[in-house]
Amino acid sequence: MNAIDTDALVLHERDERGVIRLTLNRPQAFNSLSQALLEALQRELDAVAGDAGARVVVLAAAGKAFCAGHDLREMRAEPSLDYYRELFTQCGRMMMTLQRLPLPVIARVQGVATAAGCQLVAMCDLAVAATDARFAVSGVNLGLFCSTPSVALSRNVPRKAAFEMLVTGAFISAAEARERGLVNRVVEPQALDAEIEGLVASIVAKPREAIALGKHLFYRQLETGIDAAYADAAETMACNMMDASALEGVQAFIEKRAPDWG
Amino acid sequence: MNAIDTDALVLHERDERGVIRLTLNRPQAFNSLSQALLEALQRELDAVAGDAGARVVVLAAAGKAFCAGHDLREMRAEPSLDYYRELFTQCGRMMMTLQRLPLPVIARVQGVATAAGCQLVAMCDLAVAATDARFAVSGVNLGLFCSTPSVALSRNVPRKAAFEMLVTGAFISAAEARERGLVNRVVEPQALDAEIEGLVASIVAKPREAIALGKHLFYRQLETGIDAAYADAAETMACNMMDASALEGVQAFIEKRAPDWG
Amino acid sequence: MNAIDTDALVLHERDERGVIRLTLNRPQAFNSLSQALLEALQRELDAVAGDAGARVVVLAAAGKAFCAGHDLREMRAEPSLDYYRELFTQCGRMMMTLQRLPLPVIARVQGVATAAGCQLVAMCDLAVAATDARFAVSGVNLGLFCSTPSVALSRNVPRKAAFEMLVTGAFISAAEARERGLVNRVVEPQALDAEIEGLVASIVAKPREAIALGKHLFYRQLETGIDAAYADAAETMACNMMDASALEGVQAFIEKRAPDWG
Repeated sequence: MNAIDTDALVLHERDERGVIRLTLNRPQAFNSLSQALLEALQRELDAVAGDAGARVVVLAAAGKAFCAGHDLREMRAEPSLDYYRELFTQCGRMMMTLQRLPLPVIARVQGVATAAGCQLVAMCDLAVAATDARFAVSGVNLGLFCSTPSVALSRNVPRKAAFEMLVTGAFISAAEARERGLVNRVVEPQALDAEIEGLVASIVAKPREAIALGKHLFYRQLETGIDAAYADAAETMACNMMDASALEGVQAFIEKRAPDWG
Repeated sequence: MNAIDTDALVLHERDERGVIRLTLNRPQAFNSLSQALLEALQRELDAVAGDAGARVVVLAAAGKAFCAGHDLREMRAEPSLDYYRELFTQCGRMMMTLQRLPLPVIARVQGVATAAGCQLVAMCDLAVAATDARFAVSGVNLGLFCSTPSVALSRNVPRKAAFEMLVTGAFISAAEARERGLVNRVVEPQALDAEIEGLVASIVAKPREAIALGKHLFYRQLETGIDAAYADAAETMACNMMDASALEGVQAFIEKRAPDWG
Repeated sequence: MNAIDTDALVLHERDERGVIRLTLNRPQAFNSLSQALLEALQRELDAVAGDAGARVVVLAAAGKAFCAGHDLREMRAEPSLDYYRELFTQCGRMMMTLQRLPLPVIARVQGVATAAGCQLVAMCDLAVAATDARFAVSGVNLGLFCSTPSVALSRNVPRKAAFEMLVTGAFISAAEARERGLVNRVVEPQALDAEIEGLVASIVAKPREAIALGKHLFYRQLETGIDAAYADAAETMACNMMDASALEGVQAFIEKRAPDWG
């Protein structure tokens, strides 16, 4: 386990398995996404993309809240259309980086996840929430409709549920988030790390290549019609099958033994 | 509150907040959508679109049923392909008007909502149903597959659930409609208006502009790939942030006071 | 009822109503989809497509398992990219044939449905599962990500739930499959046939033409934007209404009698 720079805006831990834990570290500001934090997170994600041994990212947050969205004080300081365009484009690039990483990203959610904080949960591949977690796209309460969060939210939950959250700005509970598809699992706060470790252990037990090409295919095929999706998936799966780890995995299955993936 | 023309096919009420209640008023015919009723509803929705003070529409229905779909007696009178084309196109235009209005539309559902009546619920942005409400796309029982309702239904509920309703023509309960995403909330009949007032009050407390641009963005981005969606949303949100009401809302938040939106 | 060739890889039964039951018949191999079985199933589905009296297909499976996916022993025997491309393309063609048939296909699921077996359930229009059924896209356990199954799965269940199944390879129960939208109904094993007969009876009571054009429209409109979907659906429904069975069905409804569809 690496040493941690506890002053950093994003804490970075990496274990010998390639499990990377990134922790939003502005607890006093409910981990709101200042430009500096957005940049720090982008840098960390770019580093993960270039880390050939990285296997899974756990996106966690320090303190009582997961993330309260953009840093409103900073946003309000110098209002200009160009500045806001740049800010929301920068934020969207970071969000899409989560989806484009060649390994799964798991959100570890406690406390509130609001606006771009709720979007962050929606953009992760998987999410585990504590029972005390609450989710809202609350910008509308200030007259700022959560437009960019709506892109992610509406791809996770049914449209009437998403619309209700967006126009009321109201919180939903962790249980409701689970029921609607925004998070995978809800557990007691003290069980959060163990639950996530279960997912992590399952993922690192699989070959990295299969997960990488599978994740990319998964999001790519969601963007196309079903015929194009099948053509893409068939080609992807044929290439995957020619991979040494898949050939060994299937052989091991036939021989009723564990695969030897070195 | 305006006076009501109780003979009209669609009753129209508007309060000082800009809350417009449109009531389908053919209770003796289970509010089936005759061409006259379709035209009356289109006129009312077009008027709402031109009403700068309108904030939210509640789409209600007089009598025991919400809406039983098209008026079959009228439809059967003079069968011709051109007539049916025109009828279903007219109906689709009205349905899309609901989605294109720059303010939320809430369905208030009691009793049966069948065929185009079920479609009407699906096309509203939000829906609150009484516990006695029941939903079906029942045209198939008469040999007329609910093709146009399937467009709306399949964008609200998972595909196997939608397909089952479409080929069996069977009713689902209000609780099932809630579980599958067709309605937001289910309450006792006597609590219907209070529940809807909760949503209405939440919506009218927000700036009209933020809701209008947010609703348009919401449906627009659902029709595109995720990269185009984010580009559109970032531009929309930047423009929204430059709006006086958003600048005031964010400033008020920073100053820990209620926004002054006049 | 026709006689059954009990040695065939796919058993074929057809009753006087046009209800066709196809039974995967490699129980000793958990009905894994060898090329011979894929070809046999394709032939049966092509025959159904050409059977003007066919009304509904029940896709069942002999033995303890529904289907364990591809035949891994066969797949592993002669590894080559061309071979795998051909295999997954052949499998995808069979899967799309299910969706393109002009009549509903109901999966009858007991035991395990894994990988392409889970995909088979997802591609059927409707699915009824026994309480003992379990579902997984487990290829990733062998290093072979279930890319082609992900196309079907991600069009049935919310994306985070689909992603979790794909990267963990873990089983979900029949109840979870129901909750997430992968199957329509779950019943005790001994009630499976009665539950399916309820759906079958409901479908065969409707005119074949309405179901055929409705099913095609349903999947077609899911692939387009909402405006194109409404235009297509309006034209489809106008044509449907001019059909003799719909004109009779609507007339019978007006006259409060059962339709006479001969």
